[in-house]
Amino acid sequence: MVSFEFDRDVAVEAAGPGRWRGTVSPRWNIGSAPNGGYLVSIGLSALSASLSQPDPFAVSAHFPGRIEPGPVEVEVEVVREGRAHSVAAAKLIQDGQARVHVTATYGDLSSLTGPTVVRDPPPTFPPPEGCVRAEGPVAPEMMRRFDLRLVPETAMFAVGQPSGVADMAGWIRFVDGREPDSGTLPLFCDALPPTVLNLMRAAWVPTIELTVHVRARPQPGWLQGRFQTRYLMEGYLEEDGEMWDQSGRLVAMSRQLARIHEEPGQPG
Amino acid sequence: MVSFEFDRDVAVEAAGPGRWRGTVSPRWNIGSAPNGGYLVSIGLSALSASLSQPDPFAVSAHFPGRIEPGPVEVEVEVVREGRAHSVAAAKLIQDGQARVHVTATYGDLSSLTGPTVVRDPPPTFPPPEGCVRAEGPVAPEMMRRFDLRLVPETAMFAVGQPSGVADMAGWIRFVDGREPDSGTLPLFCDALPPTVLNLMRAAWVPTIELTVHVRARPQPGWLQGRFQTRYLMEGYLEEDGEMWDQSGRLVAMSRQLARIHEEPGQPG
Repeated sequence: MVSFEFDRDVAVEAAGPGRWRGTVSPRWNIGSAPNGGYLVSIGLSALSASLSQPDPFAVSAHFPGRIEPGPVEVEVEVVREGRAHSVAAAKLIQDGQARVHVTATYGDLSSLTGPTVVRDPPPTFPPPEGCVRAEGPVAPEMMRRFDLRLVPETAMFAVGQPSGVADMAGWIRFVDGREPDSGTLPLFCDALPPTVLNLMRAAWVPTIELTVHVRARPQPGWLQGRFQTRYLMEGYLEEDGEMWDQSGRLVAMSRQLARIHEEPGQPG
Repeated sequence: MVSFEFDRDVAVEAAGPGRWRGTVSPRWNIGSAPNGGYLVSIGLSALSASLSQPDPFAVSAHFPGRIEPGPVEVEVEVVREGRAHSVAAAKLIQDGQARVHVTATYGDLSSLTGPTVVRDPPPTFPPPEGCVRAEGPVAPEMMRRFDLRLVPETAMFAVGQPSGVADMAGWIRFVDGREPDSGTLPLFCDALPPTVLNLMRAAWVPTIELTVHVRARPQPGWLQGRFQTRYLMEGYLEEDGEMWDQSGRLVAMSRQLARIHEEPGQPG
């Protein structure tokens, strides 16, 4: 019995060898388009059902087309199964066209052994109750799925006072009590508002490519995420993210390449 | 008439619809294994021959198996061709098994328009003649393909005095005068020695996943690259790279997930 929104909305059912069927819910929309991390999660749902290892170590997604809420087919190709790592690719298909392409290397995060040398501690944020809750009638539909508390300096875009620095940071968890696990991290890594909103107004910042490296299984509780853009060049930008769990352990790193579509009337 | 080592060694010839044939040269070996960036470049050779756009914007590679020098088949699937961007995937196959999987979004870097806001200037390195040339009988075979000048602080591993900070930085160009272009950047992003050599001795640091975002076409001349590892966790590490051209423009960002195999006899 699936009882959480995330699990319900990424579920897929078998539809033949290497074929799966799911439904893209409008609950994860930003405006009229489903969030990229949510679509990746549907792909991972089919990939993890196709592989024996439990954790996505490295997830690469390319977004050549636009997905609409509604039925979606997922075509899975197991590229290679190995002892430590396996690789498989999934295509999300609507109207016979592949619109999202996800490749992932899976492994088992509980079985790692090797040296650990961590250079950076987790960032020091005010506690969740000292941050700005993202909610209200203008927040995208997807924001209702999360309890997101933005660090105040990075939340200023929301009151028309962008900070001038393309950072976004805050605490995040599912609103319905679903605890994070390794399979939810790609979604969390694409769930904060775009960093560039603290530089300029944007109509839309679609993802071209998203890579997530899952580095550890998260503890239950809040995740702490920090996202940064250092190079906005001719409308293209990277968004680099790090995500820690409540114990202060790094659990994921992400990078996306995105493209800014400015609001009409802006100089550009 | 192809006259440069790079072009000769990544060349593929058509072998049927979506199928290409190439040869993995031992000239790009690290020890007995071909460099990951070189293998990705063979994949890109087949991908760029299959798509109309000229530049790889985002390249994601997963490495589920080991490739040996010798004949290789490349199987290409065009996922979707679009006006601005196209996505395709390539598999490098030996003995009937897919061993490297490359997905790329292509576009045209000469046609970009949009805002530019760059936060970080290029790093200040000593000039190439003030850096340490990587050469000599113990350097991997691949190093003979490049003129690589490491920033002295990051070259100390080579004289048995690792700096203790997992950074690697330097100037790089092809040794035979081949100028860089957008298609060569994924190789350059995997060409410096592993950052972790400045933390500890390693027998081998194989790449699990490599993502390269090509942000601009490089000017002729030297490339300047900086690579950093902040999180070595239970033997797994990211290596984050940035690459600038001689004009000081960022031309690529890279991130890889790799795994350290320590030398026998080390605690670990």
